[in-house]
Amino acid sequence: VTALSPTERLLRACRGEPVDRPPVWLMRQAGRYLPAYRRVREQVSFAELCRDVDRAVEVSLQPLDEVGSEAVILFSDIFTPVPGMGVDVDFRPGPVIAEPIRSAAQVERLRVPDPRESVPFVLEIVRALRGDLAAREIPLLGFAGAPFTLAAYLVEGAGSRSFSTWKRMLWREPALARDLLARLTDLTVGYLNAQIEAGAQAVQLFDTWAGMLAPAEYREWVLPTHREIAAKVDRAAAPLILYVNDGSHVLEEAVESGADVLSLDWRVDLAEAARRFGARVSLQGNLDPCALAAPPETIERLVRELAAAAAPARGHILNLGHGCLPDTPVEGVRAFTAAARALAGGAP
Amino acid sequence: VTALSPTERLLRACRGEPVDRPPVWLMRQAGRYLPAYRRVREQVSFAELCRDVDRAVEVSLQPLDEVGSEAVILFSDIFTPVPGMGVDVDFRPGPVIAEPIRSAAQVERLRVPDPRESVPFVLEIVRALRGDLAAREIPLLGFAGAPFTLAAYLVEGAGSRSFSTWKRMLWREPALARDLLARLTDLTVGYLNAQIEAGAQAVQLFDTWAGMLAPAEYREWVLPTHREIAAKVDRAAAPLILYVNDGSHVLEEAVESGADVLSLDWRVDLAEAARRFGARVSLQGNLDPCALAAPPETIERLVRELAAAAAPARGHILNLGHGCLPDTPVEGVRAFTAAARALAGGAP
Repeated sequence: VTALSPTERLLRACRGEPVDRPPVWLMRQAGRYLPAYRRVREQVSFAELCRDVDRAVEVSLQPLDEVGSEAVILFSDIFTPVPGMGVDVDFRPGPVIAEPIRSAAQVERLRVPDPRESVPFVLEIVRALRGDLAAREIPLLGFAGAPFTLAAYLVEGAGSRSFSTWKRMLWREPALARDLLARLTDLTVGYLNAQIEAGAQAVQLFDTWAGMLAPAEYREWVLPTHREIAAKVDRAAAPLILYVNDGSHVLEEAVESGADVLSLDWRVDLAEAARRFGARVSLQGNLDPCALAAPPETIERLVRELAAAAAPARGHILNLGHGCLPDTPVEGVRAFTAAARALAGGAP
Repeated sequence: VTALSPTERLLRACRGEPVDRPPVWLMRQAGRYLPAYRRVREQVSFAELCRDVDRAVEVSLQPLDEVGSEAVILFSDIFTPVPGMGVDVDFRPGPVIAEPIRSAAQVERLRVPDPRESVPFVLEIVRALRGDLAAREIPLLGFAGAPFTLAAYLVEGAGSRSFSTWKRMLWREPALARDLLARLTDLTVGYLNAQIEAGAQAVQLFDTWAGMLAPAEYREWVLPTHREIAAKVDRAAAPLILYVNDGSHVLEEAVESGADVLSLDWRVDLAEAARRFGARVSLQGNLDPCALAAPPETIERLVRELAAAAAPARGHILNLGHGCLPDTPVEGVRAFTAAARALAGGAP
């Protein structure tokens, strides 16, 4: 395969078509580890930044020049579409729900809004980014939080180590939990399709908390939401990437979602995943973000090992197994993208 | 097999010998979910309770009568032996290290104390419990935190979501990390053997944070510490149970430790683990503690399913996949132990 544009490379890898080498980007590549991002955040809060079209476009683009990423992901938060349902959300810095959703009356009051009305600024950010990126042949990704993760925060009220309030609802009030998940699934489908219509060329679904479930409960509570999203999102226009954080124990179930790409946590043995699932789905990942603190020559070796491990898969996108951390060294991120560019070959 | 005493049942299950039915106890069975425990804690802090022989014995025994557990585990904390190394540890409520260990000079200053001198109160608690339990034929378990987990706290200074400071040391200063782990491994071996000498009939090693590593890094940093502990602890006198929290991706490595029993996180499919590893090691677990919020009849079904799933293994100890939580319903714990007692048969 002759040299591809970054857009062709990413979209072909998502669909399992031949590429010259693996594409590369990083989850949370626009974040506090970047001095240029911190300068913007000195002027606006995180919540303001998500609604400020010019600044959100600016920080979305920073990773291209600052660290050599080859894809852009919309700067936003998984909770951005949730206030449109009629729920107050605050960020300190994780989402905090003023009145956690725990009753049938509260669930029934949740609206599924039209994103063009509830979050027009998100679609403006997507359109502006796509306009900017088209000439550079850099692909644009949209994203959404997955229903299970949104529900976990909405019921618990905030992040938690055990999410025992949310899990108690699963065990004691399954019909209520199902109603909540159904509304959030509708929200997510509409939100992702609106991003695609506005110009997102691929979309990633982040299920940050689904990995807290045992396989049987994951199959009952999470898989149906992923399946419905994969069925209803316009995947012909934009492939779907599914990320289940801490989900190494539910890979088979994640593949059954129908997503085009599985984004793997660093705990997954990538070679084994490529052998078991690589014919059915493309893989993304999966370096431990903490490994970006290693010396550059170690990062280069780790990238080569990841690419070799993923080789049996129909497609591979180089990425981390989780987002960049506030203390991730910028030079480590640069070494990561440089090592990706230095890869000769890749999939045939 | 005719009816066994709780002690015989547990020790036989650990060693893969025939039992009448699976033994049952729960991790963190003496804890805040128990009103009797909270009453004691109104009088003393957590740190004081760990050093107060009479009260520690009292709370250790509470789960027998309060919730029907069939084994007692020493009430203590994984950080109890650490001040004896010369490190200041505070509890708020997780361990907080006043001066995190980050330099070679600090590591070199760490002593490996004789537990009879540094933590005589722990050994008194063990002796008192064993004396009390002998007549009731209830088994007594000792425990220790594993070196990787202790090191993670010591370097990071406190709990953390990413433990990026500790992981940075692994990547940038591997010799220093290895020195720290070696000293903590010596500490752990001496501490467990002292508990066994004082009367513990089985010991559990808790590796709370080892599951944060990818399989290759786990093999490099964690497995050698477990192997050394399994080799040096007096397993002829007391079988060794290994618990790796969030370790569903490193089961093969955990089996290679040489431990007698693997205590499994609830994310592990117990049936698959029993098929793959059950001939080599006994299994413990692995109900999600949050499932104890389910109705009693659901808990009874889940216990039957766990026992059936574990049947191919050489031995199975019914337990949770993690500790009881402060909001775990007492009646759920009672339903769990009652369901275990109601099991007919088990291993042949």
